[in-house]
Amino acid sequence: MSLAFQTDAHRLRGVTDLRGGIDLGGTKIQTAIVDPGGKVLGEARHPTPISGGPADVAQTMADAMREACAAADVSTEDLIGVGVGSPGDADEKTGVVSSARNLPGWEGSFPLGNTLSEALGTKVRIGNDVQVATEAEFHLGAGREFSSLVGVFWGTGVGGGLVLDGKPWLGRGAAGEIGHMVVKRGGAKCPCGRKGCMEAYAGRAAMEAEARRQHEEGVKTDLFKLMHKHEKPRLTSGIWERALDHGDHLTAKLIDRAIEALGTGIASAVNLLDPEAVILGGGLGIRFGDRYMEPLTKEMAKHLFVDERPPAVRVASLGDLGGAIGASLLFAR
Amino acid sequence: MSLAFQTDAHRLRGVTDLRGGIDLGGTKIQTAIVDPGGKVLGEARHPTPISGGPADVAQTMADAMREACAAADVSTEDLIGVGVGSPGDADEKTGVVSSARNLPGWEGSFPLGNTLSEALGTKVRIGNDVQVATEAEFHLGAGREFSSLVGVFWGTGVGGGLVLDGKPWLGRGAAGEIGHMVVKRGGAKCPCGRKGCMEAYAGRAAMEAEARRQHEEGVKTDLFKLMHKHEKPRLTSGIWERALDHGDHLTAKLIDRAIEALGTGIASAVNLLDPEAVILGGGLGIRFGDRYMEPLTKEMAKHLFVDERPPAVRVASLGDLGGAIGASLLFAR
Repeated sequence: MSLAFQTDAHRLRGVTDLRGGIDLGGTKIQTAIVDPGGKVLGEARHPTPISGGPADVAQTMADAMREACAAADVSTEDLIGVGVGSPGDADEKTGVVSSARNLPGWEGSFPLGNTLSEALGTKVRIGNDVQVATEAEFHLGAGREFSSLVGVFWGTGVGGGLVLDGKPWLGRGAAGEIGHMVVKRGGAKCPCGRKGCMEAYAGRAAMEAEARRQHEEGVKTDLFKLMHKHEKPRLTSGIWERALDHGDHLTAKLIDRAIEALGTGIASAVNLLDPEAVILGGGLGIRFGDRYMEPLTKEMAKHLFVDERPPAVRVASLGDLGGAIGASLLFAR
Repeated sequence: MSLAFQTDAHRLRGVTDLRGGIDLGGTKIQTAIVDPGGKVLGEARHPTPISGGPADVAQTMADAMREACAAADVSTEDLIGVGVGSPGDADEKTGVVSSARNLPGWEGSFPLGNTLSEALGTKVRIGNDVQVATEAEFHLGAGREFSSLVGVFWGTGVGGGLVLDGKPWLGRGAAGEIGHMVVKRGGAKCPCGRKGCMEAYAGRAAMEAEARRQHEEGVKTDLFKLMHKHEKPRLTSGIWERALDHGDHLTAKLIDRAIEALGTGIASAVNLLDPEAVILGGGLGIRFGDRYMEPLTKEMAKHLFVDERPPAVRVASLGDLGGAIGASLLFAR
C-alpha cells in the first residue's frame, strides 16, 4: 500500500538491516534506529520548532535522524528506509502531509516524504502517528499476544489506531478517529469544533480549557499554580499528576470525567469491532493507565453489549519511543 | 472459519450448484434457494412459532426450506448446503445458537446446525442474521461497488454488520453491535438494559415503548388507533408510515429522534472505520431510508471528523429476501 520516495534510484540502498523511525509530535521530534528484532540502537529527541514552517520542521527532523544514526554508528544512506509517524492528514501514497495544525505554518500541504528522502539519502514512508504507535504495540509491545486490537492514545487529543486480524486497518486513510466518536449527543464542545466527542471530555487540551474556565469562575485549584511553579507553558500530564497527588479536587473531578468519556467511547468501539484487546497509550494514558484501570474498565462494562467477556485492556509498554519504533515498522509492513 | 454439520459423511453432496438460505426472524422464517449468480429460484415464508421451543422452530425452518426446494424443483439433499442467518448468539464454529430471546423458549443453547442438518440431509452453517444480510448487500445488493461497508439494520432493534477489505469482520464473534454504540451517555434506557445506546432511541421496540409512554401521559397520537384498525399486535413499520402520512405529530417527532440517534451513531462508526459505504436496511430502514436520506446524512455530517468526503449511504436493495440470500452465501465464503 505504501509507496517509497527516493530521489536517486541508482544508489545502493539498505546495505544494513536497520530502519529509522521518526515520531513527529507537536512538542518533540523523537527519532530511533531500530534493528530487525525491534531493538533501539540509537535515538535522539529535539523540540519541535515553534515558528517557521514545514521546511524548518523537516530540517529539524533530518537533524534528529542524523543524530540517532550517529549514536547507532550508521549513516542515513545505509538504512533500509526511514518511517515517519505524522500528525495531520498524512497521505501514505504520496508522502504529502496536510493540515498538521499543531505544527508551525502547516495549515496547507507539504511534501514531507520527498523532502526528507532528499535530505537523508534514503527511502521515506509517511504514516499516521497514532496508527504506527498502535502497530508498534501490536508487534513489539503490550499487544503482542493479540491478533486484533484498538489503540487509544490519550494525550493532548485522543487518537486511535486499529489492527484487525494482524493487519493495520486504515479505511480510506482516516480510520481510527476514536476521539471523535460521540459519547454525548449535544454535549461539550470539542477542540475539533463538533459537540459531544470523547475528546471534548478526555483530551488534555479540552481538560485544560475546562479547568481554566472553572478556575476563572472561582473554582479553587492548584493546577495553574503548579504549572507556573514548574515553568510549563501548559497543563502537562506531569502537572495533572502532581495536582492529583496533592489532593486537588478539580483535578480529580476532571480526570474522573475523562475516564467516563474514555470508558463510554471505548465500549462503543468494542461493541462495533469486538477486538481481543484495547491498548491505552499517550501521555495521559501511560501516566494514569495503571492508576485508573479499575474505574476505566468499570465504566466500559456499563456499556459493553457482550459484558461477560470484555477485551483485555493494557497500558502501552513501549513508552515514549513507541511512536518512533512504530514509524520504523512502516518498512516492515 | 466456518465448520459444516453433516450427519452422514458418506452421502453424495452438492449434486446441484444451488444453496439454501434461511432467515430466522422473530416474526417470520424466510427461506430461499439461490443459484451461483445470486438469483432466487424458490422461496417460502412461514410465521415463526410463538410457543413451544427451539425444536419447534427448527421444525418450521425445515418445513419452509423443503417448501422453497419444491418451488425450485430440487431436493434438500442436493443442495451444496443450507446457511442460516440467526438472531441471538450464533456460534459459527459449533452451529449452536444461544440466548435468542425473540424466539420461544430459546433463553438457553440449542444445536440448531446439527438438528437442521439431520432434518434436511445436507450441510448447515449458522451465521449472525445481520452480518449475513450485510454480506448479501455487499455481494449482490446496494454495496456491490464498494470494498468496505458498514451495514445498519434499522428494525425492531438496530443491528450492524461489517465488511472490511472485501471480507466479513466478525471480531471474536460479536462484532457489529452498532445499535449499542452509545450516542448519549446517561441517556434513554435501552431494551438491552443499558443507557444511551443508539437503539434506545432508534429501535422500533424502543420507539413503540416511548410512544406508549407519551400516549399514556396524554400526548395525542393515532399510532395505536391505526395499530388496532389494521389488527397488528405492535407498531409495525407500516403503521409508523401510515401515521406519518396522516400527519401524526408524535410519529414525526419520534422518527426525527430516531434519525438523530442513527446519524450520530453511524458517524461515530465512520469516524472509527472510515468505510467506503453505509448500507441502511431493516424494516424501518427500507421503508424510511429514501424518505429520510437527507436528514440522516445531515445528522451524520454534524459528527463526521473528515466531513469533506462522507461515505456513500445507500438503502439496502435486496429487500425482504436479503437475509435468506445472505445466509445462503455462508456456503460461498
